[in-house]
Amino acid sequence: MGKEIVLAADLGGTNLRMAAIDCQGEILYRTRRETPRGECADEIVEAIVESANECRENCADFQIKVISAAVPGTVNIKDGVIITAPNLRALNDFGMVAALENELGVKAVLENDANAAAVGENWCGASRGFKDSICITLGTGVGGGIIIDGKILRGADGMAGEIGHICVEPFGAACRCGSRGCVEQYSSASAIVRIAKELEAQYPKSILKNNTQLTAYQVFQAGKDGDKLALEVFRQMGFYLGVALSSLINVLNPQVIVIGGGASAGWELFIPQMQETIRQRAFGGLSERGKIVRGELGDDAGILGTARLAFDSLA
Amino acid sequence: MGKEIVLAADLGGTNLRMAAIDCQGEILYRTRRETPRGECADEIVEAIVESANECRENCADFQIKVISAAVPGTVNIKDGVIITAPNLRALNDFGMVAALENELGVKAVLENDANAAAVGENWCGASRGFKDSICITLGTGVGGGIIIDGKILRGADGMAGEIGHICVEPFGAACRCGSRGCVEQYSSASAIVRIAKELEAQYPKSILKNNTQLTAYQVFQAGKDGDKLALEVFRQMGFYLGVALSSLINVLNPQVIVIGGGASAGWELFIPQMQETIRQRAFGGLSERGKIVRGELGDDAGILGTARLAFDSLA
Repeated sequence: MGKEIVLAADLGGTNLRMAAIDCQGEILYRTRRETPRGECADEIVEAIVESANECRENCADFQIKVISAAVPGTVNIKDGVIITAPNLRALNDFGMVAALENELGVKAVLENDANAAAVGENWCGASRGFKDSICITLGTGVGGGIIIDGKILRGADGMAGEIGHICVEPFGAACRCGSRGCVEQYSSASAIVRIAKELEAQYPKSILKNNTQLTAYQVFQAGKDGDKLALEVFRQMGFYLGVALSSLINVLNPQVIVIGGGASAGWELFIPQMQETIRQRAFGGLSERGKIVRGELGDDAGILGTARLAFDSLA
Repeated sequence: MGKEIVLAADLGGTNLRMAAIDCQGEILYRTRRETPRGECADEIVEAIVESANECRENCADFQIKVISAAVPGTVNIKDGVIITAPNLRALNDFGMVAALENELGVKAVLENDANAAAVGENWCGASRGFKDSICITLGTGVGGGIIIDGKILRGADGMAGEIGHICVEPFGAACRCGSRGCVEQYSSASAIVRIAKELEAQYPKSILKNNTQLTAYQVFQAGKDGDKLALEVFRQMGFYLGVALSSLINVLNPQVIVIGGGASAGWELFIPQMQETIRQRAFGGLSERGKIVRGELGDDAGILGTARLAFDSLA
């Protein structure tokens, strides 16, 4: 038998990515397809199975020990059940581990996607070598994974790490979680667009005005070109992210905070205000001692993290 | 030789309390004196030594194995050094463990007072039997101790758990930590007085008006008598404590949150608004599953917690 490997899936609202990964974190084969958007969990399972079979065919020399899946939602790790998946509602209350084990005939494990990204960056990326780290994923929303003493912090119900729902403005923008003023409403890709829309009347010369299809990427491009509206949007993004991280630093005193996700592409535009805010607000000296770094693994953080958890499950 | 016991000190800004405690958490003898307020750490050490000798004389049948001290400041546990003690500046950078071991001839251990209170409530009090708990101490300031998987969360520099410095109002009241809008500025005894002063012009009929020596206890008494200014102060205290706890619940997903400290005496006046705020704001379902309870040990939480840590240090 060949070397032992795992199949690691990162199931996003848009794409399903899968890779065959060895115990060094080397990606031996990878594939991607669209995530089925239907009402039925079986279609999603089928897509994962197809990806897995494609990986198997292309890794015939290796021994596949586990399939692991990072999913965008809350997960009951012990029972292998997805509790809620706001962007893939077909998976609410779905027993994904049983379904995959049944279809593929290998052990399966499940993890929340933000936790998986934190483990990935800790295994092969920006927080390598640190035992206390936090990973924040700035995407459509704001996700978080907390690693304490080398282990994911899960909390009583497996729902810890919801960093995107730290309140930074108590009477602020309504959040999809039911609260108001969550940092997700100020420092995510969707927040960038919302804030730009809200402020555009104050910036009559902005090239972003009256764009009904505005994207976070367009705001970023405008910011790089010096557009004042875009720069103010990223300043606010950085300020509120700094407020949330200051609270988090005071509570958790991490060694390192990794910032990743698609909206971290705007790094150069939001990071100065974020760092200044943390310097002013985090508790005495902690802001100097804790490092804040950019994620190194990009889109691969999730599949690498879930692969690592798959290997851990064999131990 | 008699039963093994420990001496546990709780060094506050005002009082130094000490007790001889056995491994069941039974207090065999206790004493209290004023904390020396001078410039010199030696005076404080001397007061602790006097208290210890008094305990020794009254517990001659027992074998004292360790002296432990809970201190109001940040602590380097490993080296036994107090890093900063804002209310007892004589102790900044002071090697308390070495001083006590030298004077008393027994092993000494040190802990932050809020962490000690969390351990005390977890050992003999309101969070007994839970492995993931948070203890919040509402006093002159707002202290916090976080226990995860049965262990105090210390963080990279031993400074984790600063729950009082979660930001709840980004452009709010200046905090002694250098930030703005920390929950300590809204939900502590000193905050109760400040907010009452700020709002009194709006309540011409309040009995609290024009009281230059106003105390939190007077605001509490007025609230119990139905004074509208006092009730509004406690409503704000509860709201902002609820905002902070919602963020904390989303991030840590604890099994139980214990609220203690002197200002928790106002429980009946601030808890309804606090609970309503958490219900509205904490992430789906977590607010229902996590319990929020009142501390059971009162002023003894700190000495019991540091006693427990003293016994743990023998293991």
